[in-house]
Amino acid sequence: MSAAWSLSCLECGRVFPLQAERLVCVDCSSRQLTGQALRGILELVPPALPDRYPESLDAASWVDWLPLNLADDDPAPLVGATPLLPVPALRRELGLSGLWVKDDSRNPSASSKDRASWLVCHMAVEFGCDTVATASTGNAASALACMCAAFGLRCVLFVPASAPTAKLDQMRAFGAELQLVDGDYDDAFEASMRACARQGWFNRNTGYNPYTIEGKKTIALEISAQLHPIEPDVLFVGAGDGVILHGIVRGLLDLQRAGLLSRMPRVIAVQSEHSDALWRGWQAGTPAAARCKQADSVADSLNVKVPRNAYGALRALSACGGDVVRVADARILEALLLLARTSGVFAEPAGAASLAGCLHAREAGLLRPDETAVLVVTGSGLKDPAAARELFPPPGNS
Amino acid sequence: MSAAWSLSCLECGRVFPLQAERLVCVDCSSRQLTGQALRGILELVPPALPDRYPESLDAASWVDWLPLNLADDDPAPLVGATPLLPVPALRRELGLSGLWVKDDSRNPSASSKDRASWLVCHMAVEFGCDTVATASTGNAASALACMCAAFGLRCVLFVPASAPTAKLDQMRAFGAELQLVDGDYDDAFEASMRACARQGWFNRNTGYNPYTIEGKKTIALEISAQLHPIEPDVLFVGAGDGVILHGIVRGLLDLQRAGLLSRMPRVIAVQSEHSDALWRGWQAGTPAAARCKQADSVADSLNVKVPRNAYGALRALSACGGDVVRVADARILEALLLLARTSGVFAEPAGAASLAGCLHAREAGLLRPDETAVLVVTGSGLKDPAAARELFPPPGNS
Repeated sequence: MSAAWSLSCLECGRVFPLQAERLVCVDCSSRQLTGQALRGILELVPPALPDRYPESLDAASWVDWLPLNLADDDPAPLVGATPLLPVPALRRELGLSGLWVKDDSRNPSASSKDRASWLVCHMAVEFGCDTVATASTGNAASALACMCAAFGLRCVLFVPASAPTAKLDQMRAFGAELQLVDGDYDDAFEASMRACARQGWFNRNTGYNPYTIEGKKTIALEISAQLHPIEPDVLFVGAGDGVILHGIVRGLLDLQRAGLLSRMPRVIAVQSEHSDALWRGWQAGTPAAARCKQADSVADSLNVKVPRNAYGALRALSACGGDVVRVADARILEALLLLARTSGVFAEPAGAASLAGCLHAREAGLLRPDETAVLVVTGSGLKDPAAARELFPPPGNS
Repeated sequence: MSAAWSLSCLECGRVFPLQAERLVCVDCSSRQLTGQALRGILELVPPALPDRYPESLDAASWVDWLPLNLADDDPAPLVGATPLLPVPALRRELGLSGLWVKDDSRNPSASSKDRASWLVCHMAVEFGCDTVATASTGNAASALACMCAAFGLRCVLFVPASAPTAKLDQMRAFGAELQLVDGDYDDAFEASMRACARQGWFNRNTGYNPYTIEGKKTIALEISAQLHPIEPDVLFVGAGDGVILHGIVRGLLDLQRAGLLSRMPRVIAVQSEHSDALWRGWQAGTPAAARCKQADSVADSLNVKVPRNAYGALRALSACGGDVVRVADARILEALLLLARTSGVFAEPAGAASLAGCLHAREAGLLRPDETAVLVVTGSGLKDPAAARELFPPPGNS
């Protein structure tokens, strides 16, 4: 399998073979400064793509679209094949006749991050690595813990001590070794990078590890297959480091190359006013400007002061004619309740950011009422169930 | 559709048509005493069953197996089609070569209860009811809140104030009207029964409403389709009121009648030593003895002093040559961690009870190592993430 796949630097275009120790470009990563967006990010280059959709939808069914050898059974709990919901009541309420919700919270550890961690664990086994490590605001760590448990790999996690307790409990239940960082995600990221370099662990850090981007492209592959013969016009997704949106664009480009999409849909990344680094970089027209001083949104999964994948994310948005929109935290929580109360989908705030961005885009004229628009819900409300509690009416007593 | 279906009393056999106000047998329910197991429970009687599996697996695909009219689109988030996992590492660790995990936590509100609430909401719409109410230890309430949100129905819930906060937050996010009961599930049950009678609400109480049993049979239908051509020998499932196990047996009987199962698998219900009413009734050989003085297991979803469906549950277990086993709470928590750490499936304690019961059955000679055994995981660990916290090693600090 992997023999025919290669890695290509998205800055200089240099090509590398797939190897355990080759996660970023030799040359461009030498310009990396601590605490800044990653340089020399690599993208997977597929040898050839099928011209049809697979029979099933789960991640493993896309074996011909991924650098993956599934000769043996996949030990993972089923990743992907999450529902694409027509949400009739939400369509009526918003006057958006082509609205769909991709409920990606229905992955094994209840977030989209399972897709990345699943492919990373497959690669770790392929490369003969026995320990995988990552920094995370929470979901990526839970996902890696989940997958490492199923693959029998050792898992080391660097997580802010302030992460929601449900996420911390979940990763500990999976048996991961937890390093609580007295700081934010950006601090956890630096700590994990140092530890991986020192210990020789397989580094799953989002964006840094190209297989995270590649795994997440299965979101787009599934959406396209589920909508077929309709084609999506626009996809909304919350953004922190910008890896999910990058993966989605990768998938859309693959689909177009395979002849399964006739035109490129635009991807609209959604950030909070309280964590808006990518928005700043997009406005300034350069990844170097993608940073913010504080990242303290209610959507904890999106809290990133320096998006590690700023180069990849902004490039992907340009490639698809996309955009970044910025919304208030209050709007994210309103969207969370609107989604739950009209469609029965309970999202965490970062997952509901896609709907908040859609509402914003509709008002700003970025979305026509009849367009086929897909909201990606990236994580479950059970990850942070108290987030919207202040908006609940008080319960009665019997 | 429903014209050809009927309801039959499992005590006297009297047959009734499907009507909003007909949930229990007129005659046998007159012997009902407050605070005791329900009398006159009705079962659905299908007119004829298909002789093949449907193409898809989700609950709506089983339309020909259910009293259901799906002429219109199903507004619900996708119910069912949850994965049946081969769990290779757990098989090796336990020496059980035919072990499978049905991860039913991957339903819309993250528990098996969605299957029941989904069918109940369809029937409420069919019957022209606009309000549905239930008592619940938590999961049934979350599931009803989720489905009512999608169906546009009013939802009133009676829940012990001591239910895990994640479950309470979840049902409030879905917009349900919450009545917190200063008491246990048994108290909530009585309060909800009174309110339904007074207000004319459609009563979804588990067991009392026959569509709850019928909805849950889709677990068995899916398992059989997923295992085909293998047939299951034994299924393990946690039990409180005994409705999930009853639904599973109903599904297995339907499959046998349809010619899709050549023999009846046995269902083994699992209870905690701290909530063992069904076990007591089973030992005594009579539903009247199915009661316990305390119900305070760590598996909160199983905490029931008087299983409302004792008549149906024990009858179902007899029909399939099943059994009830009783395990310590500590064993349930050990099973929770064992499952998470070998398979990447994070269950709530009630969901891990199936594995605890399997371990017990293996030691007690109730299970051969080569049998095809299915563990039903009925709810997600994110419903009560702190449950196993005391068993976690302390995290490190970076």
